[in-house]
Amino acid sequence: MLTVAVCMALLGCLQAQELQGHVSVILLGATGDLARKYLWQGLFQLYLEEAGKGHSFRFHGTALTSTKQGQEVIAKVLESLSCPRDTAPSRCAELKAQFQQLSEYHRLKTPEDYLALSKDIEARVQHEGLREAGRIFYFSVPPFAYAEIARSINSSCRPGPGAWLRVVLEKPFGRDHRSAQQLATELGSFFQEEEMYRVDHYLGKQVVAQILPFRDQNRKALDGLWNRHHVERVEIIMKETVDAEGRTSFYEEYGVIGDVLQNHLTEILMLVAMELPLNLSSSEAVLGHKLQAFQALRGLQRGSAVVGQYQAYRGQVRRELQKPDSFHSLTPTFAGVLVHIDNLRWEGVPFILMSGKALDERVGYVRILFKDQAYCAQSEKRWVPAQSHCLPQQIIFYIGHGELGGPAVLVSRNLFRPSLPSASWKEVEGQPGLRLFGRPLSDYYAYSPVREQDAYSILISRIFHRRKDSFITMENLLASWVFWTPLLDSLAHEVPRLYPGGAENGHLLDFEFSGSHLSFSQPPLEQLVLGPDSAPMPSDFQVLRAKYRDSPLISAWPEELIARLAGDIEAAAVQAVRRFGKFHLALSGGSSPVALFQQLAMGHYGFPWAHTHLWLVDERCVPLWDPESNFQGLQAHLLQHVRVPYYNVHPMPVHQRQRLCAEEDQGAQAYAEEISTLVTNSSFDLVLLGMGTDGHTASLFPQSPVGLDGKQLVVLTTSPSSPHRRMSLSLPVINRAHKVAVLVMGRMKREIAMLVSRVGREPRKWPISGVLPDSGQLVWYMDYDAFLG
Amino acid sequence: MLTVAVCMALLGCLQAQELQGHVSVILLGATGDLARKYLWQGLFQLYLEEAGKGHSFRFHGTALTSTKQGQEVIAKVLESLSCPRDTAPSRCAELKAQFQQLSEYHRLKTPEDYLALSKDIEARVQHEGLREAGRIFYFSVPPFAYAEIARSINSSCRPGPGAWLRVVLEKPFGRDHRSAQQLATELGSFFQEEEMYRVDHYLGKQVVAQILPFRDQNRKALDGLWNRHHVERVEIIMKETVDAEGRTSFYEEYGVIGDVLQNHLTEILMLVAMELPLNLSSSEAVLGHKLQAFQALRGLQRGSAVVGQYQAYRGQVRRELQKPDSFHSLTPTFAGVLVHIDNLRWEGVPFILMSGKALDERVGYVRILFKDQAYCAQSEKRWVPAQSHCLPQQIIFYIGHGELGGPAVLVSRNLFRPSLPSASWKEVEGQPGLRLFGRPLSDYYAYSPVREQDAYSILISRIFHRRKDSFITMENLLASWVFWTPLLDSLAHEVPRLYPGGAENGHLLDFEFSGSHLSFSQPPLEQLVLGPDSAPMPSDFQVLRAKYRDSPLISAWPEELIARLAGDIEAAAVQAVRRFGKFHLALSGGSSPVALFQQLAMGHYGFPWAHTHLWLVDERCVPLWDPESNFQGLQAHLLQHVRVPYYNVHPMPVHQRQRLCAEEDQGAQAYAEEISTLVTNSSFDLVLLGMGTDGHTASLFPQSPVGLDGKQLVVLTTSPSSPHRRMSLSLPVINRAHKVAVLVMGRMKREIAMLVSRVGREPRKWPISGVLPDSGQLVWYMDYDAFLG
Repeated sequence: MLTVAVCMALLGCLQAQELQGHVSVILLGATGDLARKYLWQGLFQLYLEEAGKGHSFRFHGTALTSTKQGQEVIAKVLESLSCPRDTAPSRCAELKAQFQQLSEYHRLKTPEDYLALSKDIEARVQHEGLREAGRIFYFSVPPFAYAEIARSINSSCRPGPGAWLRVVLEKPFGRDHRSAQQLATELGSFFQEEEMYRVDHYLGKQVVAQILPFRDQNRKALDGLWNRHHVERVEIIMKETVDAEGRTSFYEEYGVIGDVLQNHLTEILMLVAMELPLNLSSSEAVLGHKLQAFQALRGLQRGSAVVGQYQAYRGQVRRELQKPDSFHSLTPTFAGVLVHIDNLRWEGVPFILMSGKALDERVGYVRILFKDQAYCAQSEKRWVPAQSHCLPQQIIFYIGHGELGGPAVLVSRNLFRPSLPSASWKEVEGQPGLRLFGRPLSDYYAYSPVREQDAYSILISRIFHRRKDSFITMENLLASWVFWTPLLDSLAHEVPRLYPGGAENGHLLDFEFSGSHLSFSQPPLEQLVLGPDSAPMPSDFQVLRAKYRDSPLISAWPEELIARLAGDIEAAAVQAVRRFGKFHLALSGGSSPVALFQQLAMGHYGFPWAHTHLWLVDERCVPLWDPESNFQGLQAHLLQHVRVPYYNVHPMPVHQRQRLCAEEDQGAQAYAEEISTLVTNSSFDLVLLGMGTDGHTASLFPQSPVGLDGKQLVVLTTSPSSPHRRMSLSLPVINRAHKVAVLVMGRMKREIAMLVSRVGREPRKWPISGVLPDSGQLVWYMDYDAFLG
Repeated sequence: MLTVAVCMALLGCLQAQELQGHVSVILLGATGDLARKYLWQGLFQLYLEEAGKGHSFRFHGTALTSTKQGQEVIAKVLESLSCPRDTAPSRCAELKAQFQQLSEYHRLKTPEDYLALSKDIEARVQHEGLREAGRIFYFSVPPFAYAEIARSINSSCRPGPGAWLRVVLEKPFGRDHRSAQQLATELGSFFQEEEMYRVDHYLGKQVVAQILPFRDQNRKALDGLWNRHHVERVEIIMKETVDAEGRTSFYEEYGVIGDVLQNHLTEILMLVAMELPLNLSSSEAVLGHKLQAFQALRGLQRGSAVVGQYQAYRGQVRRELQKPDSFHSLTPTFAGVLVHIDNLRWEGVPFILMSGKALDERVGYVRILFKDQAYCAQSEKRWVPAQSHCLPQQIIFYIGHGELGGPAVLVSRNLFRPSLPSASWKEVEGQPGLRLFGRPLSDYYAYSPVREQDAYSILISRIFHRRKDSFITMENLLASWVFWTPLLDSLAHEVPRLYPGGAENGHLLDFEFSGSHLSFSQPPLEQLVLGPDSAPMPSDFQVLRAKYRDSPLISAWPEELIARLAGDIEAAAVQAVRRFGKFHLALSGGSSPVALFQQLAMGHYGFPWAHTHLWLVDERCVPLWDPESNFQGLQAHLLQHVRVPYYNVHPMPVHQRQRLCAEEDQGAQAYAEEISTLVTNSSFDLVLLGMGTDGHTASLFPQSPVGLDGKQLVVLTTSPSSPHRRMSLSLPVINRAHKVAVLVMGRMKREIAMLVSRVGREPRKWPISGVLPDSGQLVWYMDYDAFLG
């Protein structure tokens, strides 16, 4: 009688239950914090929503504690469950009683325990004449326990044929790419990828879950706006007021990046940035597009982030982890990161990710600020907020807390009236005096959920409905770690800026960007204690001038050195163009010039690119589009950013008729002819060289006479390292240049730099020693690492 | 006695006067408005400043009116002159008396009058035992009188050898490039360029005159900021509340662009944008750099501007110029113009120029708004204006009027503390409640002149001191007209938006930009009266589908047609890349594809450029960098904006070994080989063709069999129009393509389109009639003008 009543009340019926089968939910770690706070409530919710629709359920809370203790905890938790707001108390009691009847505690410790549980489920299913539909195992346990549990489930607790298995995993999923990969491999040996549901509970937050549907339902309005031509910036922010006290053992391992940015904020970033699939109901399409967006992320570098640590943190760590007073934690509790997405839609748009503990307010939001591309002819005091295109235009996904106090979607009234499903979203009531993001609340169309729902309730329902797009696939996870790991590595020895915490922080944590580089807006207030292996800062030194092999030497820390070289090249270019109308610049490949290219591209407005011809000093015999090609580096770091006319770019013809450096294609001769035709007297205005650890330069290698003398301007040579075949300017044409600059950087070059400083002109042994312009000028640019070691 | 006293009072002495000589100032049109209001006062000022420093002066007011009448007017004007603020009344009366003694009226009408004046000056100089230093002729007369007066001065009134001549001219200097050139040539036959001082009185306004010195004195702070990486936009604005009543005869001829934008606002634009010379005291350097900035201006197009006309204007014109009720003036009284500067410093930064009559306020300013590149970690209510980098950062040259009520230089306190000469600039006192450009006045460092000076006083002093950089050189003038004339031409038949005037304008005149295109933010409120030859609007029609030569035809207004074609090309590209990993697109040159290139570059984020190969359908035998080269159009309108890898771009090899299309260089064979190597089966994925008025397509011309059949993929052909030699894909390779699109636009194509619709396949007569893909698809894209005439 009771069952029928429930079934009717829940709009289902017994027949349907038999049809769809029985679902067992096994909550591992059922007595823990997360379970008590959210997961049992989520399961209760699932039961309320689904029990009438064809499935029967049973909920197994499990943990390591004894059966008695566990039962007591569970009983207490179940007692405290709450019903939806509009449920009558008597009805609520009834529903809770039903759920309690279906819930039970098991101690789950040994493989035998798992087997016993499995048998128990099977017996019960059989006894009640049901068909088993599937089992959900929810891992609410620390990650170190994952492998053991996974092994036991796989070996002893899988459902029989025809029934599905779903395992739900909670972050953290590793600390970096390596550990994440390891964890993935481990779990992959027990479960199929499709069986695993990796939870990022942010994806269950109502506003976050609304991002894609919002984009979908407002396609018409957003289609022309959602791109680099209209978006000024995107801010993805999660600020906390609490600090890490009591959680420092976790925090020391993950820091703010592992705790918040790598997962929550990155997932949100993807929802904003990804191409919108035509059909949102396809999990595969959503996941595929998301993964594509990961591929377009520009790699993070040390300059992509600013990090901070609240002042009390180190004391908390020492206390909680019993560290000595000499222990200095470098773990960031605050991070601001600048992300760029290198595709046509988002190129150049800054995505700012920021999170921190001990900040002045608790709030989470995504803010899409549109470019102000209007001019308003009236005096601003006459502007009407809903009409003026000169007031800020923004869309804000307000995740929660903050001055608004709850989740909301805001769209500036001067943008468009958004469409949101009216059954679940209602207009926010006015709150006089409340200003958000520079404007009064009344300037926005503002919507909040009709019924606030907990993220876990939403996610548990989505697990049940196999909505895989609300979870983190392994590919997604690893892509995220591929993105974050280099930054984490580069920050490993960075001293974070200390901040007092709360409103006291003032403007101390404000940061700004220039190109891809992020820095704090204010200079540090105090001299920070330097880490044990910290080096003196570049600014402690001046640029050093000296002689090297009887030619001028300029030495400095890398940044100054590159700036100096870029300045010298620009000066030479301006001079040449003024005198001759053009500037012939021959560039080497390799990693050192990359920084130079970037400097030239970003900082030199007066550079006469339109009159500059770019030549290659040497090239590997690979197609121009090969990542190993020197030309490829030039294209990626320089050509993309400046306007050199197509016909002023002179790649070496190493690839003709689908052959590489074939003698019979006469590529070297063709290049030589191009030089003779265009470059007066075959004298380049400037040749940029490097120096290898074996003393090679250009692609002229020790122990080979090719290209050291004679009349050939361009030669084919053989490198000791792969790819072996090269094309290179010859030493004679190099020495015919008006200016030759040799750039040498890094500690690895120290030894050869020392050696070459002492030897005579012996190009056969050390080709670099043969560089000495006939009548031009030679300048050596060496950083301190190469010069001073 | 009196003379000595003056001399001492003015810190000079008689000896010095004799040394430096005598200066005659001849004010032509001395009884006119401008003279009475500003020029006599400016001359008085000049006298006060210079009389003691070594020159003696005499001021000759001249006009056409009788001596008696003229004398009366002048006497009245001289009586009303005012002294500097701190002059005692008795002292002022004394100074005015001296000036009156030195000033006199002449009637100047016939060449004889000029000769008489000249003799008079010479006689007086000789009589007083002085040496003549020079003569300044100030033309305060309508431009139609310039030539006659200039002739008379040149023939009868030049000073003797050793003394200089300066003639001062007031705008307007022409109505367009042609008339300006004509005027320049005319005046050039009477005066040397160095003798002419063309006044733009805006250059004498204190704040405008301060722009370059400000940039110079704040070089250190501005050096890193004054460029596209930091400047968000520049607004150069002059708003008026008055209308053109009483001046419509002038206004009908010049409109707001000729009245304000071409001169005042353009000059200011140059002061902001030009490279700053190292030495501001060199007039040559300043003028040279300014001229360079003109060269970098991107050409204006019809879409670069929005124009309006206040509602009462047409009535005023009819009344004042006795026009019938049917007369519709198209003269703009309001214009907003978007200017781009294509150099590395400013590329992409919008410069907004706006001016209008009958607006809601009178104000002039230049506003440089910097990019917001900061994120502020604190809640905005805690931001401190002087410290927060998240509040607007701007520099404003406030020319005058408006809410501030006078000239000022403002710099946001969160930017830097500017340096201004403290002798002439003082900090503005607080005005509680006053907000400017979104922020309270207290957020700015604000400086105003210690002593407000009239522009004409400043300029008259600069004429005297030969500061040519405060005037418009002929080169400068013509450069400005070269820039503005195409826009004026394209606006000639544009119906301006009507606006009610004053605060009533509401948001009606607000405008916004997207790329280089400007448009009003609001749709028009009323159906405007269409001009006599106005066409129905594109939106009145749908895209039309039909058949043409048995193949699909798509017809629409140009904008829709281009959008449709771009969409179809993108779809083909996406499909090809998905299936084969690459997309081979062969493009034609000419003007129609330009709009297509722009559409593809700006609106198609999903276009797989990285996998697209670009080929040329045909090419003229000119170097690739020649403006006539088809490749050059491709480079300027497409390649610059998208990321096609260098090695995916395939220009036709028309220029090898410094020869053009030499048979022996085998360029056609080389291109054919490149096609066979890279394009599977030599079948392009899409070939875009055009159609000439003679029925040619690609570079296959009527009455020539070359390239119409046979095995050659690429051929050399001869065009009836210059440059005659061409390289072209052959008809067989075109017909081998998977898709062929023929784009035909414009009324000029109407006749041939009609003809070709009726003929059979006769490629010898009409090569376009031979286009019929073997197995691919042919689609015709014709705009209504071409299809419907």
